[in-house]
Formats: sequence, C-alpha cells, structure tokens
Amino acid sequence: MKRDDLTEKILDIKREKDLSWAQIAEAIGGYSPILITAALLGQMKLTKPQAEKAAALFGLTESEAKMLNEVPYRGSLPTAVPTDPLIYRFYELVNVYGTTFKELIQEEFGDGIMSAIDFEMEMERLPNPKGDRVKITMSGKFLPYKYYGNEDGVPDYGFGNP
Amino acid sequence: MKRDDLTEKILDIKREKDLSWAQIAEAIGGYSPILITAALLGQMKLTKPQAEKAAALFGLTESEAKMLNEVPYRGSLPTAVPTDPLIYRFYELVNVYGTTFKELIQEEFGDGIMSAIDFEMEMERLPNPKGDRVKITMSGKFLPYKYYGNEDGVPDYGFGNP
Amino acid sequence: MKRDDLTEKILDIKREKDLSWAQIAEAIGGYSPILITAALLGQMKLTKPQAEKAAALFGLTESEAKMLNEVPYRGSLPTAVPTDPLIYRFYELVNVYGTTFKELIQEEFGDGIMSAIDFEMEMERLPNPKGDRVKITMSGKFLPYKYYGNEDGVPDYGFGNP
Amino acid sequence: MKRDDLTEKILDIKREKDLSWAQIAEAIGGYSPILITAALLGQMKLTKPQAEKAAALFGLTESEAKMLNEVPYRGSLPTAVPTDPLIYRFYELVNVYGTTFKELIQEEFGDGIMSAIDFEMEMERLPNPKGDRVKITMSGKFLPYKYYGNEDGVPDYGFGNP
Amino acid sequence: MKRDDLTEKILDIKREKDLSWAQIAEAIGGYSPILITAALLGQMKLTKPQAEKAAALFGLTESEAKMLNEVPYRGSLPTAVPTDPLIYRFYELVNVYGTTFKELIQEEFGDGIMSAIDFEMEMERLPNPKGDRVKITMSGKFLPYKYYGNEDGVPDYGFGNP
Amino acid sequence: MKRDDLTEKILDIKREKDLSWAQIAEAIGGYSPILITAALLGQMKLTKPQAEKAAALFGLTESEAKMLNEVPYRGSLPTAVPTDPLIYRFYELVNVYGTTFKELIQEEFGDGIMSAIDFEMEMERLPNPKGDRVKITMSGKFLPYKYYGNEDGVPDYGFGNP
Amino acid sequence: MKRDDLTEKILDIKREKDLSWAQIAEAIGGYSPILITAALLGQMKLTKPQAEKAAALFGLTESEAKMLNEVPYRGSLPTAVPTDPLIYRFYELVNVYGTTFKELIQEEFGDGIMSAIDFEMEMERLPNPKGDRVKITMSGKFLPYKYYGNEDGVPDYGFGNP
Amino acid sequence: MKRDDLTEKILDIKREKDLSWAQIAEAIGGYSPILITAALLGQMKLTKPQAEKAAALFGLTESEAKMLNEVPYRGSLPTAVPTDPLIYRFYELVNVYGTTFKELIQEEFGDGIMSAIDFEMEMERLPNPKGDRVKITMSGKFLPYKYYGNEDGVPDYGFGNP
Amino acid sequence: MKRDDLTEKILDIKREKDLSWAQIAEAIGGYSPILITAALLGQMKLTKPQAEKAAALFGLTESEAKMLNEVPYRGSLPTAVPTDPLIYRFYELVNVYGTTFKELIQEEFGDGIMSAIDFEMEMERLPNPKGDRVKITMSGKFLPYKYYGNEDGVPDYGFGNP
Amino acid sequence: MKRDDLTEKILDIKREKDLSWAQIAEAIGGYSPILITAALLGQMKLTKPQAEKAAALFGLTESEAKMLNEVPYRGSLPTAVPTDPLIYRFYELVNVYGTTFKELIQEEFGDGIMSAIDFEMEMERLPNPKGDRVKITMSGKFLPYKYYGNEDGVPDYGFGNP
Repeated sequence: MKRDDLTEKILDIKREKDLSWAQIAEAIGGYSPILITAALLGQMKLTKPQAEKAAALFGLTESEAKMLNEVPYRGSLPTAVPTDPLIYRFYELVNVYGTTFKELIQEEFGDGIMSAIDFEMEMERLPNPKGDRVKITMSGKFLPYKYYGNEDGVPDYGFGNP
Repeated sequence: MKRDDLTEKILDIKREKDLSWAQIAEAIGGYSPILITAALLGQMKLTKPQAEKAAALFGLTESEAKMLNEVPYRGSLPTAVPTDPLIYRFYELVNVYGTTFKELIQEEFGDGIMSAIDFEMEMERLPNPKGDRVKITMSGKFLPYKYYGNEDGVPDYGFGNP
Repeated sequence: MKRDDLTEKILDIKREKDLSWAQIAEAIGGYSPILITAALLGQMKLTKPQAEKAAALFGLTESEAKMLNEVPYRGSLPTAVPTDPLIYRFYELVNVYGTTFKELIQEEFGDGIMSAIDFEMEMERLPNPKGDRVKITMSGKFLPYKYYGNEDGVPDYGFGNP
Repeated sequence: MKRDDLTEKILDIKREKDLSWAQIAEAIGGYSPILITAALLGQMKLTKPQAEKAAALFGLTESEAKMLNEVPYRGSLPTAVPTDPLIYRFYELVNVYGTTFKELIQEEFGDGIMSAIDFEMEMERLPNPKGDRVKITMSGKFLPYKYYGNEDGVPDYGFGNP
Repeated sequence: MKRDDLTEKILDIKREKDLSWAQIAEAIGGYSPILITAALLGQMKLTKPQAEKAAALFGLTESEAKMLNEVPYRGSLPTAVPTDPLIYRFYELVNVYGTTFKELIQEEFGDGIMSAIDFEMEMERLPNPKGDRVKITMSGKFLPYKYYGNEDGVPDYGFGNP
Repeated sequence: MKRDDLTEKILDIKREKDLSWAQIAEAIGGYSPILITAALLGQMKLTKPQAEKAAALFGLTESEAKMLNEVPYRGSLPTAVPTDPLIYRFYELVNVYGTTFKELIQEEFGDGIMSAIDFEMEMERLPNPKGDRVKITMSGKFLPYKYYGNEDGVPDYGFGNP
Repeated sequence: MKRDDLTEKILDIKREKDLSWAQIAEAIGGYSPILITAALLGQMKLTKPQAEKAAALFGLTESEAKMLNEVPYRGSLPTAVPTDPLIYRFYELVNVYGTTFKELIQEEFGDGIMSAIDFEMEMERLPNPKGDRVKITMSGKFLPYKYYGNEDGVPDYGFGNP
Repeated sequence: MKRDDLTEKILDIKREKDLSWAQIAEAIGGYSPILITAALLGQMKLTKPQAEKAAALFGLTESEAKMLNEVPYRGSLPTAVPTDPLIYRFYELVNVYGTTFKELIQEEFGDGIMSAIDFEMEMERLPNPKGDRVKITMSGKFLPYKYYGNEDGVPDYGFGNP
Repeated sequence: MKRDDLTEKILDIKREKDLSWAQIAEAIGGYSPILITAALLGQMKLTKPQAEKAAALFGLTESEAKMLNEVPYRGSLPTAVPTDPLIYRFYELVNVYGTTFKELIQEEFGDGIMSAIDFEMEMERLPNPKGDRVKITMSGKFLPYKYYGNEDGVPDYGFGNP
Repeated sequence: MKRDDLTEKILDIKREKDLSWAQIAEAIGGYSPILITAALLGQMKLTKPQAEKAAALFGLTESEAKMLNEVPYRGSLPTAVPTDPLIYRFYELVNVYGTTFKELIQEEFGDGIMSAIDFEMEMERLPNPKGDRVKITMSGKFLPYKYYGNEDGVPDYGFGNP
C-alpha cells in the first residue's frame, strides 16, 4: 500500500459522503484543521487516536489507520515548479520575494533560517468590499546558524554585531 | 545596463556605507519596507520620487535612477529549486502544504486563487522565551475563476454551491 | 479515482457515441463551449446541474458526477515544453512574444499582469481564400501590482506616471 | 556582437531618451507596433529602411543597423518555464488550455495546427468599470497536416470526415 | 483507453502475425507507408476506411478503429533527448546542423520556417559497395513569417531584400 | 580564445562586408556549402588551405585560422529543446517520426543505425505555385550493430532473417 | 506486452531457477556473453534460434520469443545521470575523461568518432594481490566524418594533415 | 562585487602565498576550521574581527572584508547533481541512504528532522594499515515537527507513541 | 517482481505486525542495523541466511527471499533533489559544505576521494538539555587517485607534496 | 583565476606553437599521456616538477604553474548529456550497457563497484583493413561494498556466496 493510494481512497470517500475538510477536522480534532487536512493529503502524520477517528469516519482498515500514524515521504507536488495556478502563486511569491526574505530576516535576526518544522500557520477569510481576501499568518522559530568551534559557543546574531 | 548589475552596485554601496535595509526603507519611504527592499533587489519598481531618493542615497546616475522606476523581469532565484537554506524553507512549505492550501482555500472561497499581485505582506519578530519567531502575515485578494459564457455572469463560489 | 481516469473514460464514451464537443457543450450548456470542453478534459469544474447533465450524457456514476463538480489539479501537459505540434505553437508564441507582451502591457497599464483567472476567450473560424484562419480572442482583467504600505493606497499605473 | 547586447543597448538608450514603445513604433513605422517592439527586443527582423530609421533614432552604428535587419535566433525567455508573473500567466494559459485548444481546433478544422508564422496579433485596452481589461486578438492560418502519398492529394479535414 | 495501449496492442498482434510494416502499409493503403506506420505508432490519424482496414487486419474493436481515426497527442519519445541510438543520430543532426539550417534556409528564402506540417518524406535504400546507405528526402513548404501591420502586406523575402 | 568568440567575430565581419554564405562557400571551396557554413558556425573543421582562404576573406589572425582547422566541441543549440522556430521544426520531426524511422530503417536493414558521421546532405529550393518548398536530401551509411562473439562474425541483417 | 515486462519476467525466472548469466550465455550461445546478457536485459536482439533457446530455458511464450528477436528501444537507465554507484562510475569516467578522449582520438585519427555500433567489448577479472581488478577492453571502428562535397571525396585524417 | 569573485580572489592569493587551510584557520581563529574554510569559500560568514584578520592575511580591501561578514547566498555546487567525484560520493550517500536516515531517525525521535543549521561537524584522519580513513562526525539538533493547534502543545515523539 | 514492490510489501507487513526497525535488525542480525534497514528498503543486499530470517519474519516467498540476496539498482530518491524535509537537510549539507569537504580532504590526504563503498556509519542519540541531537559518525577509506603511467607507481599524496 | 581560463590559455598556446598532445606528454613526462592531457584540460593535477615543465613549455606564470599542481573541480562536460558526437558515443555505451555492466561485474565479484579512482586506461590504434579501430583498455580495482557491523568483517563476495 502506498500513501498516495490511501490519499486517493480518502478523497473518494470524502466525495461520496459529501464531507468538507472543516467537518473532517472537527471530527478528528486535536490539531489545527490545516494539519489534519495536510495529514489526510499524505504530508503529515496523525496520532493514533486521531488515526482511529479518521478510520471510523472514512471506514478505513486497521492497516490504513496505522499508515496515517506514520510519517510520510513529504512533497505534495508532481513537478518541481507546480502547474496548478493556486499553488503556483505561492511558488511565485517565493521566487519573487525569496532574496527579500533573506535580506530582511537576516538583518533582523542574524544568520539563520525561519524553521519550516517548528512552524505554525493559520488561514482566514478577510471580508472586503472590493473582494474578500485570503489571509495567511505563519510563524516559524528563528534558528541561528551554529558557528561551532567558536570560543564561547555564543552564536553570532544579527545586524551590527561583531 | 542590466538590472542585475544595478542590484550588485546597490549592494556594494550599501556595504560600503554600512546602511541597513531599515535605514534605506526609511530614507526612501512611501511603501512597505519589504517592497523597497524587493525593488532594490530588482523585483519591484520604485516611483520616480522614490527612485530619485534612492539615487541620492546611493549616488546613482540618472539612467540608473530611471531603471529603478522600470518594472523588472521578475524572478530572484538562480535555480528553480532554491539552494539557499533560508529561501529553501519557504519552497519546502509550498511543496509540503501546496495541496492543503488548494483544498482549504477552494473549500472556503470556491474555484479561484489567492492573488500574488493584489497582495501584501508584513514581517515581524515575535519574542519568545524558547527562541524568537519570525511572523509573516500575508493577504491576497481571492480571485474567482471566471466561468465565462454562463448565463448570468455570476461566478461559481465555494463549497456546497451549485 | 483520479481525475485523469475520469477524463479517459469520458473520451472513451465520446468516441463510442460519436459525440462532438459542440454537441456536448450544447447538451450541458451554461458556460462557453471552451470551458465545458476544458472541464471534461480535467482543467475546470462544472456546476452541479451541469455535472448531472454530463453524467446523464456519458452515463457516469454519481461519484464521477461529483468529481466533475470539483476543482481539479490543473495542468494538462505531460511535459513542461509541450511536444504536440498544435499546442507547441502556442508555447512558441509565449516564448517569442513573452518579453514583448510584458513591455507593451506594462507601458499601457503600468506594473501588473493580465489575469489568467478573471479571463475569457473565444475561438472562431475566419474564412479566407488563401486558407481559413483560427481566430482567438482573449481578454483578461488587468491586475495592478499592489504597492502596499504606500501612503494613499493608490497603485502606480503606467508609462509616464510618478 | 551578440543580438542580446544590441537589445540591451537599445533599452539603455530608450531609457535615457524617455522613449515609449508607441513613439518608437511610430518613428520606425511600416509594421504593427507589436512587431517593431519584438524586433527591437531581438525576436524579429526589421527591413533595411526600418533598421536605418531605428539606427537614426537610437544612434546605432551601421553594423548594428544591419544586425536589426537579420533574422535573430528566437526565444526571449531565460528559462523553459518563465519566472516573470506577467509572462507566466500566458504560459499558464497554454498549460491549462492546451488540450482544449487541440480538441476544439481539430474538431473544427481537422488535423493540423494554427500557424505561429503566418500569424498576426493585436493588443487593446478594454475600458471596464470593474477594472480595465487587456484584449488580445490573434489569428493564425490553419495549416492542415499533409497526408502525403494519398491517392488524390486531398488533405483530410475535420470532424465527421472520412 | 489510451493511444499508447492501442499502439502496444497493435505491435503485439503485428509480432504474433509476423506482419511487416510494408505488408501492413500495403493492406491499408492510401498514404505513404511512412504515414501508415506513424499512425499505427500513435503519431498520425488514419481515415475511416483506412482505420477499418487496419481494424480488420489486426482484429481491433470498433472503438479502437475509431481511435485510429483520431488525431493523437503527438510526441513519440519518452525523453526530450532520445536514448535510442538510431533516433539519437537524428537528434544529433539537428543539434550539429541546426544553426546551419537556419542560416542557409533564411539566406535563400528570407525569414520563415520549413513547415513540419505541410511536409512530406521518403525513405530509400541506396545500394553502395562500401555499405548501403539510408536516403531520406524531405520537403516542407517554406512559410514566410508574416510581418503584419506592414503597408502592403507583402512579406519580406530573402537575402539582399529591403 | 573560444570557438564561440571566433564564430561571433566571423558573423560580425560577414555582416560588415555584406557577404552571403553562398559567396563565402564559393570563396573557400572544396566542400559542400553546407559544410563550409557549419564549419564557420563552429560545428565542423576546415582543411588548412580552406582555413587560410577563410582567414584571408575575413581578415583573421593566424591563430584564428588554425582554430578553424581544429575539430570543435560540437552542439550548436543553447538548450536541449531548441527555441528557434525554424530549428524547432526539425526537432519536432525527430520527436514525431523518431519511432517510425526506427521501425522502417530496422525493418529494411536490420539492427543498426543511419550514420550521422558518414553522412551527406543537400538543400534545394523547389519552386511550387502554392509556395516554394525546402527540399533536404540526406544519406547516411547504414551501420549494422556488431553482434560480436558470434561464430561467423556475420552481422544479423533485417526482417525475416535469423 | 512491453519489453520491460519481458525483462522483469526473465529476471524472475532466472532468480527462481538460480541461473547465472554465465550459464544462460552458454545455454544460448552464438554471441559474446555480454551481448546475450544485454539482450535479455532489453538492450539487444537475439537471433531466432537464440531466442528459441532462451524461450526453452525460461519457459517463454512464442510471442515473447519473437520479442527477443526484435530490436528494442535502447536505453537501460531510468535517469539521464545514473544513480546506481556501479553504473555511475562509468558515467563519471565519461564526464571526467570526455574531453581527453576527444583530443586524443582526434589527434590520432582526425575528425570522427569511435563507433558505438561497430563495437565490441570484453570484461575480465585481473587477479591482483592488492585486490582484483575489473578489466574492460573495448574497440570500436573509427568513423571519419564525411566532408562531403569535397573534390576528391577523401576524408581528412588526423594531426598535421591539410 | 560578487561573492564568487571574492572567493576566486582568495583562492588566487592562497595559491600565491602557499597557504594551507590549516594555516588560514589558525590565523583567523574563533571557529572550527571547517567553518572558516566554508566561509572563505563563500558559504558562511565570518565575524567582524575574523573578517579583519582574513583581510590582513589576504590583503583584502575594507569592502571585501565587510563582504566576508555578510551571510552569503548559499549553495556551493554548479549543478544539482555534483560532477566532482569527491563531492559526488557524499551525494551518493544521501541518495542511497536517504530513506534509511528517514526511517531510523524518525523511529528514534518521532516526526522531525536533524537540523542542518544547529549543526556541527568534525573531520579526522583515521590511520589504518589497509589505507587511512576519512572520519566525519556530525551532530544536528533534532527538531520535532510542530503539530500546532493541538490541545497541549506537546509535540508527538517517536515510535510507539500515541 | 520489482524490488520496489518487495519494499512496499515489507513495509506493509512491518506496519501490520507493529515491528520496529530495531526489532527487525535484531531478528535478522549479522550487520549494522543501518545496513539491515537499507537492505529492506531496497538499497543493499542481505546474505542468504539473513534473507531467510527476513523471509521468516515477514512471511515472504522463496523467490522474494532470493531477491533480498540480490544487489539492487541503488538510488532511493524519486527526484534528484529530494523533497522530503528530513532527507533534504542532508542534501543541503552536501550542497553547502561540498567544496569545503573537497578542500579539506584533499589538503590532508592528497588527490582522491572518501569511498562511499568501503564505508561505514553509525547513528546515535545525544541527550542534550536544549534538545537531543542526532549524531552520525561515518568513515570511508581514502582512495588516492591513481596517477598511472608514472615511473614508480607511487600515488601523489597531500599538501606540500611534489 | 579560474581553471577554465587556464585551460583555454593552454589550448591557445598549443595551437600557436603547433604542439601535439603526444609532444606535450613527452615533454612533461612521468604519467600516462592520457593523464597529462586530462590534467592540462583541467581534470587532473600535475606534480610540481611536471607543472614546472608545463610552465616552461607553455610560458605560464608561477601562479598558473601552481594551479596545475592543484586538484581541480572535475567534470569536463558543459551538459549532463554531452552534445559532442565523439563524447556522446561513450555516454551511449554507458546508457545501453549500464545494467549489463552491473549484472556481469556483480555476478563475478559480488556487491561492489569498479573504481574510477584506482583506475588506469590505455588507448591504442588497431590497424584493420576494413577501417582502423580505437582500442581502449581500462582496469579499475574492484571495491567490495563494506557490509559493516557484520560479525567477522568479511565482505560478502559474488555469485553463489552466502
């Protein structure tokens, strides 16, 4: 059994049962709806109790439930540059703003990255008379590059520092 | 003159004058600091008055100032998959969460995209005892796919709709 | 069930029943024939009533009808550069005229894009004694780049503007 | 001398002299403004008289004028999938609508292509209270595939034909 | 049913029945043997009567016969650079002689292309004491680039022209 | 000195002196005009006497003349899939007809290839009232695959053979 | 039936019957063991008698035996740069020594190539106290580039030639 | 000034002055020799005092010294798959052992990654009578995936956990 | 039967039986747990007795057990640049530190590589109050490049050597 | 200074002085002519005395001579799949025979590779009345995969072994 096949099966049942992701996330609970959705799309894992609830909801076998509790091989896109327009727009933002993110984050925090692991995200609808907006808020822990072998083990933070 | 060469020149002068992006954005003004930075990195344009202020700050020629007022050929990354770790983490988010973005935005809004053009973004530092966090808030106008040729010109929104 | 498999099934039935796209679009109705065709090829969604008509026409299951009402993962080409000569000619136009489109649209409208979402298209046959011509008319809303953080929120339009 | 270097030089002078493409096309004359722009961007050739006018306008050498009269190695994009958002939207249209173009053109005309060579195009601004639109009209000669070696040399047109 | 599967089926039956392409082309008739072969390999269409003869020869279903009468999505190679040595040699010729073709055709004919659509080809065996040779003769209509918008609609042909 | 730079220099002088490839090939002599052109475009070598004539014609240094007598690193295209429309049409022919070439050549000759080395080619203009045609005739020696280690060293030719 | 499926079937039976390639090559006979192995891996053809022996050894159907007598679409690697370490080392040799091969072969033989078609190869184990060595001996016919159109048809061999 | 040019300059001076990396790292001090080397190769930053020592050692300008104190755009390889044999072997290890790393780290630690940022490394020579060995020891902080939105904020660790 | 299918089957049974890699490695024994895991993931071979133990543990057929005793076609990643975050971090280390590895290993050992074949590795958990760390220790035999044809057969080691 | 520039300089001088690789290898001495050639093409290093002889022969600066004594970043081909026909034939051999090499070497020697580092090669001209042949003999040390962690440290060799 491949994780992709399980994802396809879940989407088939979701369609047949007319379930929305919001209903599914509420039925499974315990995490952000974004995470529950990502897990059912094969990008995150569920805990055992969550996987059991998912199995009940979707009528999965025990083995399929266990698979939902496993860490998947991540990567949801069939091509390095996504072809779907909704997803491409996010890729475009990275492409256009990538070097800006780098300059501004490193100016503020020093050498390091924003973690994509110790990371959280929310999505909201912003009503707007000119057309509603999608609002995405994300925060990731700043991880300073470890400059190992230095005398005092103090990492080297930010702008204007030695 | 290529825009890349102008970007390189601006970075050289920024280094020599010990300017921070925050100082530069304040000196130029008028837009979000993110946009000013992106423009100087060759991804956005400045208005003429901004370009003149930038020219004064960096000692640019008139022709270089004019180039800052032009729309650049966008794309800041030398490879389709970015190699720089800070930027890669954003690409990874798109890769891992891409299909989740698609499912959740389209469930909420119907068929369409979050615009990367009618779009704004902020970046903040979230103090945190376990390590400060980078917070990024973005909002883009939801653009519904036009289903043209339909009888009443009404686009077809969201989950549960006809 | 994958959308590709549904597309293949629809093409099989279309062939068996000797249906033309024109007949199909008329039977389903409600949108441009281009959109109906694109939806059945897995690139757009149909409304529920349209999907039901399609299901009746092609003898689809209820679940397949529901899938036609879902937004697909778009991208109809098996390779980034299309190999089919008819489709390649369109890619070639983008490759040859891409920078020209950019210069002329941005000179006329300022910084922004022609939307591929709020977009419509028609295709016609132009009789011509030297050989008939394919005429394609497309119009997309011009979306100005939002230069956020600016004092008055006024985007910055076109040639000769500040 | 490379054509790219000549394009860069022309863009430099255009910037210094504050010329618009509309002014340039009018000064050179003889072809559609789209073609004049494409030629100066290194994708088409000018006739000798046009090249001389361009040389006068931009102050080019005789050798550069001759180069404008040469057919260039076409292809204006630095990557197979364009990164610039304005140009990408056109690529996206080809990607999403490619198979639809194929089905509908071949249903109407039979096996063949829309020529990208015997081809013309216009671009217009459509005023619209919800936001102006970019209108592009293109027409290309339909070229039927030659089914050579057949008894009567008659190509095989369209839907419902033998 | 996919065209690839039909091609595979036809090759299976050809093998079982010990048919040669020459025999097949003769049995189907009406086009050059090259075209008949290309059609059965999924790159061209057959007319209805030809498709029926092919169906009789290979024992195909009615639906398969109809598929042979459809224009396929062309492109016979699994990779952009072919790995099979016989086919690669042709790719090599294009790679080595590509710019030479361009210079010589455009010097003789002006700006344009040799059509790959209004095109015909023959293949012959040239007996030769040092080893027989494969002779390929191809001719394609020269299609002049349309320089639209010009005053007299006369395209601009060849070397030494204005 | 790189061969590309020499090619660029030769094209610059050709332009300045208004030379055609036909004139150049005649002045240098000794080979097919296709080969002379290919050599000056950096894909073939000239003999010493030819290189000297080329040097005289173009005013090259002795070292540049020597370089024309060297075998170049072949490959005239900047991308694996050519973007120039004239050259792309040849690539398209290989892509569409590749498997047909393979089937027909191997049916006639057995396992092997058409040499792209022991190869010759001619290009002609075919006058035609519907539009002149480009005729290309090529012949390459058939090279049978050596099935080494076989008892009698006889290669295994063609259809119906053991 | 695809050649890949036949290769997989042969490898399954080889495993079940505990056959070595040496045993297989001996049982089939007539060619070098390298060629027999390559043929069963889907890269070469067998003669009819060999294919029958192979069919007897592996219990293949008549149709599968015929397929072994067909020339396959060559190319045994799933990626352009092989990932398997043993095979990669050969790719590495080509990458590191490629230009050296070119210089030395062309200095010795003139412009041309070493044929990969009229080619033979042997593999041996060289006992060595520091660790046995793999010895590979290959020889390919040198094929001089045909400089067609030259006066005397004499190709142009090697270093110091005219 | 590009970081690549600075790296090239440093390597030129290192060569001229016959400096070893060990001598350089000792002269600059403060970090692991691996880090100092990586910084001078354009992959890490130095502190200001280190950059000044480096400037003194290599005779750099003040501006070059400042550049060494900047975070570079990381990525030291000219191709996605490295061609240099020494570096390729590391790529090969990732390719061969990648899924094993994933299984074993996640079994031990739960869902997360080994940080490449909070990371340190040492390299040693292991004398060995059969041939000395290169020993590399690396340790990276395990970063658990944040399963945000969960009730107690407790990440979900390892094998056998809920 | 393909190795990938066997890997998938083993993972299915591992999931159903709630086996950990540690339990599996202990049950099979004889090699490092890393190797046992890699073998079951299709990247290494097991000895016959190990394969039999694995077959007993997983309930494999005799033929499947034999396959585990075969050397696989190595390469565990579906893309050249891995998308899974855990595996990507290792790729990133190679990308960032690749040239540093090269400089430091060759300074210490001379021209050659660290073998990825005569290679061993260990993985450990380092408890750490700030968060546990993953420690990986690897050692590979240094293989000096053979500079063959030299007078005394002595390879040329390290920094400061002739 | 980049190694590529040094290679280009050496080829320029070689051309001007009419030196052959054979003469150069003899003048430098100490290694196989293949190695000397590869070193001057930027793929291997020379010893100091060799580099000095090379410097004398080519009139290089002291710094250039030192560079010849450095290990280069290897990889002589501008594209992953070489376009030059002579070099491509070697790539083709790897592509066609890759899996055969793997099967036969591993059947004979067990799991491991043929080293491309502890490797030597010779090239010869084989006179042959049907056309001379290029003979290449290579031998590389077989390196058995280390199956570490096994009880007795004995690697696991070849066919029929445990």
